[in-house]
Amino acid sequence: MIAIPDPLKKSMLYSIEAGGKRIRPILMMASCEAFGSTYEKVLSASVALEMVHTYSLIHDDLPAMDDDDYRRGKWTNHKMFDEATAILAGDALLTYSFEIISKDSQLTDSHKVFLMKELAEASGPRGMVAGQVLDMEAENKMITVEELEMIHHLKTGQLLKCAIRSGAFMADANQKQLKAMETFAYYLGLIFQVQDDILDVTGNPNKIGKAVGGDEQKLKSTYPRLLGLDGAIQQKQRYVQLAKSKLLEADVNSTILEELIEYFNQRDH
Amino acid sequence: MIAIPDPLKKSMLYSIEAGGKRIRPILMMASCEAFGSTYEKVLSASVALEMVHTYSLIHDDLPAMDDDDYRRGKWTNHKMFDEATAILAGDALLTYSFEIISKDSQLTDSHKVFLMKELAEASGPRGMVAGQVLDMEAENKMITVEELEMIHHLKTGQLLKCAIRSGAFMADANQKQLKAMETFAYYLGLIFQVQDDILDVTGNPNKIGKAVGGDEQKLKSTYPRLLGLDGAIQQKQRYVQLAKSKLLEADVNSTILEELIEYFNQRDH
Repeated sequence: MIAIPDPLKKSMLYSIEAGGKRIRPILMMASCEAFGSTYEKVLSASVALEMVHTYSLIHDDLPAMDDDDYRRGKWTNHKMFDEATAILAGDALLTYSFEIISKDSQLTDSHKVFLMKELAEASGPRGMVAGQVLDMEAENKMITVEELEMIHHLKTGQLLKCAIRSGAFMADANQKQLKAMETFAYYLGLIFQVQDDILDVTGNPNKIGKAVGGDEQKLKSTYPRLLGLDGAIQQKQRYVQLAKSKLLEADVNSTILEELIEYFNQRDH
Repeated sequence: MIAIPDPLKKSMLYSIEAGGKRIRPILMMASCEAFGSTYEKVLSASVALEMVHTYSLIHDDLPAMDDDDYRRGKWTNHKMFDEATAILAGDALLTYSFEIISKDSQLTDSHKVFLMKELAEASGPRGMVAGQVLDMEAENKMITVEELEMIHHLKTGQLLKCAIRSGAFMADANQKQLKAMETFAYYLGLIFQVQDDILDVTGNPNKIGKAVGGDEQKLKSTYPRLLGLDGAIQQKQRYVQLAKSKLLEADVNSTILEELIEYFNQRDH
């Protein structure tokens, strides 16, 4: 093994350091602390998860996929470097995420296996990648709210589920609690996505870091398009109530997780 | 989790079923048997490794990379489907490889961790992906034989090393044997690559399944280009002797591994 070649390392770091809200690692750590453990326990898994999220953005932005020039107010990876480098940087981040979990000397083998299994399931062909495929298929046609929920459940929700389940598991949450937290993650993902759709209609491009109205142009199915803007806002409020009820069910007293619901609900970028 | 969406599954299976010599799984199984265990022990890891190899071919063939239309006498994945699907099928195969190892109920957690660590290291930013980046950088310029060896050591050799080390480890080979087998894999990879370069000059396109002379056209650094055709053949013979000596050093009596050296040496496709 050698050091990571310079152009590859630059490209990987460019997208990792391009900002982003670090929602997934924060959720994993918050979930771990909500059940009485410390964030250090999921440090490598949090980093791995953020790398998987970052790889997915790099590949989603490619010309053959969403063909986006800007992300978080900066050039997308393939615009900054080139397409080949962007594809490889994505591949490298995905692979490296498993490497760092497998090498974390603070974890038991059984914990490593759990974390890698959760990560692979969430991001693989029955998880995030499935969501991306269904999302592409849904372009330029009308779908139902249920179909839209399924797409987001896979495309966004699976990594959130991974964050929250991994955090809770590493803090020894029981099966009933894990189940409730998984459903909590489900609603949290939907809140995130409805707000994303709403921001594409009403948001401030300077805050979001990309142009608004892109979904409309691409004839993407969105909550405002399917339910109207007011309907989307109401739907989001329902999800907020459901998410809160799941925290109660999991018997969790976590100010941070409650605040994260509100953050997801009200964020302006 | 849902079933793999149909278009994604088709695309993944298309490349998996497009043939290929299954060299990596065969090597892993042969290496495991050479140390007295059975191939069943590395079944999931072999499948995972072939999936990683297949993902790398799909991404390498993309227009932004090598831009190849044919592979193994069939359309490349992005020609058969489209670029977006090919990118996602590659991502899915890579991710799924970790999922199937993590879920193999026949393996201990400690074995799973070893196999996933080897696989991630071999295929990641300091392994195979590094080789791909260095290979791209080397196009259109002359490099030394040492630099060429390093590229192949990373691009092809790392997965062979993973195959052979994983097989030996799962059969409880000792540290000295693992080290010797790793060097065996190194020479085997070089034999494979020199023969690949030779076939691009002298091969029969019908047997190879793609046009010959492509390296020349792309001004790729190859052994025949750097050493002449005779020089390349001599170099290959040196690697054959070195590979054989490493099997002796590992104290391995494996007819299959010896035959594989000859197969690598003399294959015509």
